[in-house]
Amino acid sequence: MNDTVRTSAGTSAGTRPADPSAPGPSDAEIAELGQQLRVDAVRAADAAGSGHPTSSMSAADLMAVLLARHLRYDFDRPGHPGNDHLILSKGHASPLLYAAYKAAGAIDDEELLTFRTLGSRLEGHPTPRLPWVDVATGSLGQGLPIGVGVALSAKRLEHLPYRTWVLCGDSELAEGSVWEAFEQAGIEGLDNLTAILDINRLGQRGPTRHGWDLGAYARRIRAFGWHTVEVDGHDIDAVDEAMATARTTRGAPTAIIARTRKGRGVAAVEDREGMHGKPLPDAEAAIRELGGVRSSRVHVRRPPDAQEPELDERPDAPLPDYPPGEDVATRTAFGEALAALGSRRGDVVVLDGEVGDSTKAELFSKEHPERYIECYIAEQQLIGTAVGLDVRGWTPYACTFAAFLTRAHDFLRMAAISRSGIKVVGSHAGVAIGEDGPSQMALEDLAMMRAIHGTTVLYPCDANQTAKLVAALADRPGIGYLRTTRGDTPVIYGPEEDFPVGGSKTLRSHPDDQVTLIAAGVTLHQALTAADRLADEGIRARVIDLYSVKPVDTQALRRAAQETGRFVTVEDHHPEGGLADAVLESFGNGHPMPRLTRLAVHSMPGSATSAEQLAAAGIDADSVVAAARTLIGNG
Amino acid sequence: MNDTVRTSAGTSAGTRPADPSAPGPSDAEIAELGQQLRVDAVRAADAAGSGHPTSSMSAADLMAVLLARHLRYDFDRPGHPGNDHLILSKGHASPLLYAAYKAAGAIDDEELLTFRTLGSRLEGHPTPRLPWVDVATGSLGQGLPIGVGVALSAKRLEHLPYRTWVLCGDSELAEGSVWEAFEQAGIEGLDNLTAILDINRLGQRGPTRHGWDLGAYARRIRAFGWHTVEVDGHDIDAVDEAMATARTTRGAPTAIIARTRKGRGVAAVEDREGMHGKPLPDAEAAIRELGGVRSSRVHVRRPPDAQEPELDERPDAPLPDYPPGEDVATRTAFGEALAALGSRRGDVVVLDGEVGDSTKAELFSKEHPERYIECYIAEQQLIGTAVGLDVRGWTPYACTFAAFLTRAHDFLRMAAISRSGIKVVGSHAGVAIGEDGPSQMALEDLAMMRAIHGTTVLYPCDANQTAKLVAALADRPGIGYLRTTRGDTPVIYGPEEDFPVGGSKTLRSHPDDQVTLIAAGVTLHQALTAADRLADEGIRARVIDLYSVKPVDTQALRRAAQETGRFVTVEDHHPEGGLADAVLESFGNGHPMPRLTRLAVHSMPGSATSAEQLAAAGIDADSVVAAARTLIGNG
Repeated sequence: MNDTVRTSAGTSAGTRPADPSAPGPSDAEIAELGQQLRVDAVRAADAAGSGHPTSSMSAADLMAVLLARHLRYDFDRPGHPGNDHLILSKGHASPLLYAAYKAAGAIDDEELLTFRTLGSRLEGHPTPRLPWVDVATGSLGQGLPIGVGVALSAKRLEHLPYRTWVLCGDSELAEGSVWEAFEQAGIEGLDNLTAILDINRLGQRGPTRHGWDLGAYARRIRAFGWHTVEVDGHDIDAVDEAMATARTTRGAPTAIIARTRKGRGVAAVEDREGMHGKPLPDAEAAIRELGGVRSSRVHVRRPPDAQEPELDERPDAPLPDYPPGEDVATRTAFGEALAALGSRRGDVVVLDGEVGDSTKAELFSKEHPERYIECYIAEQQLIGTAVGLDVRGWTPYACTFAAFLTRAHDFLRMAAISRSGIKVVGSHAGVAIGEDGPSQMALEDLAMMRAIHGTTVLYPCDANQTAKLVAALADRPGIGYLRTTRGDTPVIYGPEEDFPVGGSKTLRSHPDDQVTLIAAGVTLHQALTAADRLADEGIRARVIDLYSVKPVDTQALRRAAQETGRFVTVEDHHPEGGLADAVLESFGNGHPMPRLTRLAVHSMPGSATSAEQLAAAGIDADSVVAAARTLIGNG
Repeated sequence: MNDTVRTSAGTSAGTRPADPSAPGPSDAEIAELGQQLRVDAVRAADAAGSGHPTSSMSAADLMAVLLARHLRYDFDRPGHPGNDHLILSKGHASPLLYAAYKAAGAIDDEELLTFRTLGSRLEGHPTPRLPWVDVATGSLGQGLPIGVGVALSAKRLEHLPYRTWVLCGDSELAEGSVWEAFEQAGIEGLDNLTAILDINRLGQRGPTRHGWDLGAYARRIRAFGWHTVEVDGHDIDAVDEAMATARTTRGAPTAIIARTRKGRGVAAVEDREGMHGKPLPDAEAAIRELGGVRSSRVHVRRPPDAQEPELDERPDAPLPDYPPGEDVATRTAFGEALAALGSRRGDVVVLDGEVGDSTKAELFSKEHPERYIECYIAEQQLIGTAVGLDVRGWTPYACTFAAFLTRAHDFLRMAAISRSGIKVVGSHAGVAIGEDGPSQMALEDLAMMRAIHGTTVLYPCDANQTAKLVAALADRPGIGYLRTTRGDTPVIYGPEEDFPVGGSKTLRSHPDDQVTLIAAGVTLHQALTAADRLADEGIRARVIDLYSVKPVDTQALRRAAQETGRFVTVEDHHPEGGLADAVLESFGNGHPMPRLTRLAVHSMPGSATSAEQLAAAGIDADSVVAAARTLIGNG
């Protein structure tokens, strides 16, 4: 055992208080720590038979300096409010992160070697199954946007001194999302945020665009208002100085642009193409070349005492309510309910994609301006910031047109892997928006949000229902999605009505029902009109308001299937992945299925009034009546 | 009629040859044209009762100079290979574009006033229903990425002299996709591309981040290798000079950063907040203030003679074939087939998101390097470039990990509105990838791709099938998607087999079948194994290979439902929006449904081997056997 770095071997680094007067590790000791991290990365990947050791080796010295001299973190208390945040944006370099956890005493060598095996917390790319991992990474270009959210929380909401460090690769700097992050961080002056860029020149399939042209990166990043430092990423002293500069620079975030060599330290792979994402060809020789296995422990500095802010909240603040019969857009009810929820709960933060006047999120900003964050037209950063705020315990509502949430699909997908609890609100759903045309119409959002793991998907049809669901979403774990409508719809529920998630409302019901009309949101009103017309013809139709699209009310749907045998679903969405598919989920495992006609938007809409759109798409009351008639006629 | 701009009134501008010796319009005449465009934008929005006149008015002078002095376009021959391309990235300023079309004689005043009405070609945001519109816009930040694709085609593939002009708003410069475009265009030195930035200071809900700080934009854009010119966007001469500079600058694209005033020319709205996206309060007064209605015609310069390049192709070039029984990954067969298709068809261009060694797209690059475009890790630009190439008649295959296609969801959604024919290939589908973990697993891609309008979705299970489907996709209109698998799978089809889109293969079938197992891709092999095991137990199971996920083979599925009554679907995808839902689509319109058990990935995977993953997710052969047994047991 080669115990060169100052350690607290045998106990967790976090369990022994730091002695501030003790000398820190020397540059040589830190260089040794870097070698240890490399060796452990090589060993982990070798044990797994896969992984990214060379991408770990380029950043090992950066990580060593950070751990030994700059990070403040209590591994025994990952929830300590004073802890720095370290986000490995280049998530494929997970062996480096796990090697660092081992060096810090957070995991042991045995666990290190479970890397990538069934049941191990040490997944191929880091996830929050490990308590020290804030968010899942591995889809590149997401760590920095999320880091901006964390840093923004510290600066604008918590007023806490922790720093956020994001270790990025060079390939991922091609992602536009990274530039959304540079822009937001620069404008917000996030001097508590440091991006460490591991410029190792080689991407997965060969050289990156800019190779080792550090200046190319520096010019771009500086133009976005950041402070930049260019260093040799294997020069311990230079890296240390850069990190010290980052910590003391005021008014701007710092990017440390580090020239490194992929596979550094092992000649067989160092700076060579074709060595990405695979174990080293001869791990044993490589470990020898790196100086052999070490088990030093690094003392990571403890965080300062810190107190999470007291929240300003009035749990009895009332939600808005609306008199039945009035016409109110659900987007308006959403905005008003969100403002009320913000009074009730101090943890609610609202993010706008520069359309707050349309989504009505801006109604929140009037009541709680300090908890309203303008993200401009940058939907990836909108969700990235939200995920970062969720890391810090806030309940963020990220709001834009539902159609534009598709822009952040990958961020939402990754947020699910991060076990994030962000709430997402999409307005202007479907053809019902009218004249603006298909670019502004969300016709795929239910499919997208339903297919993301662990989501809740709600689609209210009236103002009182909306208000209740806005509040319910805050209590719900996982990613929540609320879909709202642009135009006015009549208030059909009383303010006293409850709308449990996973429930539904049966609005027309009779023992002789011949068909069930299932709808939600704007089409629910078409279904009600259709039921009335069918009743005039002597056809009894049950009507179910399926406001909870995920989870669905399996019980009510099965009962309706049993009692009426026939379903007409009607939705303002493309036919794939929306309401009808949600309905049919209740009939898995061999449960007898109803006969079903699905009305949905099959064609490509153009411009027209809202009523014309519903008719053209075949999802208005007339279409429902015709479909029900045909379905009953067919037996 | 105020005929101040040089016109060919009464006939289409395009039908009269230009007289090169005739003097061009004066600055004053162009200023008048600008006023005409404003008036017509105001009139169109007023007639519609909605729309974005103020966003049109800020850019009217830019458009007037472009039309009168710089654009080369034959409106009678929108397919002329020498035509410049004009992309209105700020698609909400559609009234300006339509006013320009009217001024150019392409549409008449009557049609202008059909703006935003049912059946009109003049939609709220432009779409290619108009022959002069290359692509739909309206989701911001997409025009420039697509323009890069068009310009790249001219420079690298066609060697044609046309220019691409993209008119952008300022709000959309917050989108990361725009910076992906700046990066690709800068690196490629696209001096045939000009971005005209209409910096009117006001977004939808208030001031933009940078207001009128033209330098803030210029610094950022210059850092990405562009030439920039800052101008007063209402100074005709300055704008003209900037455009002339753009046309003569060599080696770099030019951004004209124009300071403008939203609502310019009408005091009641000019540079005022709260005036976005609505008709002018008093249109009549506004038109008076703008100098009244005009009907001048602008002579747009004709394009030079140009010839589309001859394609190098050998229609008889064979596709690869594979001996049944061998183990070959479908991603490998895809890469080999794509290379062969590239020999067969000279219009095939392949785009890589810096993972060509993994997707195997790089096999194409070895045969056809001149038609291989590296887009680095920038999936929005990957799809944007593809859409731009499709505009120019190429058949682009854009390839990356299927999981990362979610990054480009909004681009794909808009590509459908653009009636684009791009092909998209996603590798590394599902939990079957094994150790890399959920960040790299596509488990939502089928839901995403199915819900996009007009798509074809194919998911092959063996190498010969893959090869045929790669070729079939090229002939198919609309957006095509091919899903491939990382690991090896046995070749089960002979090379002579055909796989029509919309078809399926019934691999096990008997009159006494009690259940149908439906699968595709990696799970098809699990279904086959399961069927064999069930047969050992005396249970006959039909097996359907549903390689065509959209459209599905309704006939085969209905027959199987009728004959077996029970379905087990098994898919390497989340349960929402994938194979099971595709199957159930065949039973709309009241068709009797089978009993169904859907096996899919319900839980969040971690790291494990491929086989362990399939077992853990409950989509391996054992799970299929158990599900079939239970389903039959339940009746």
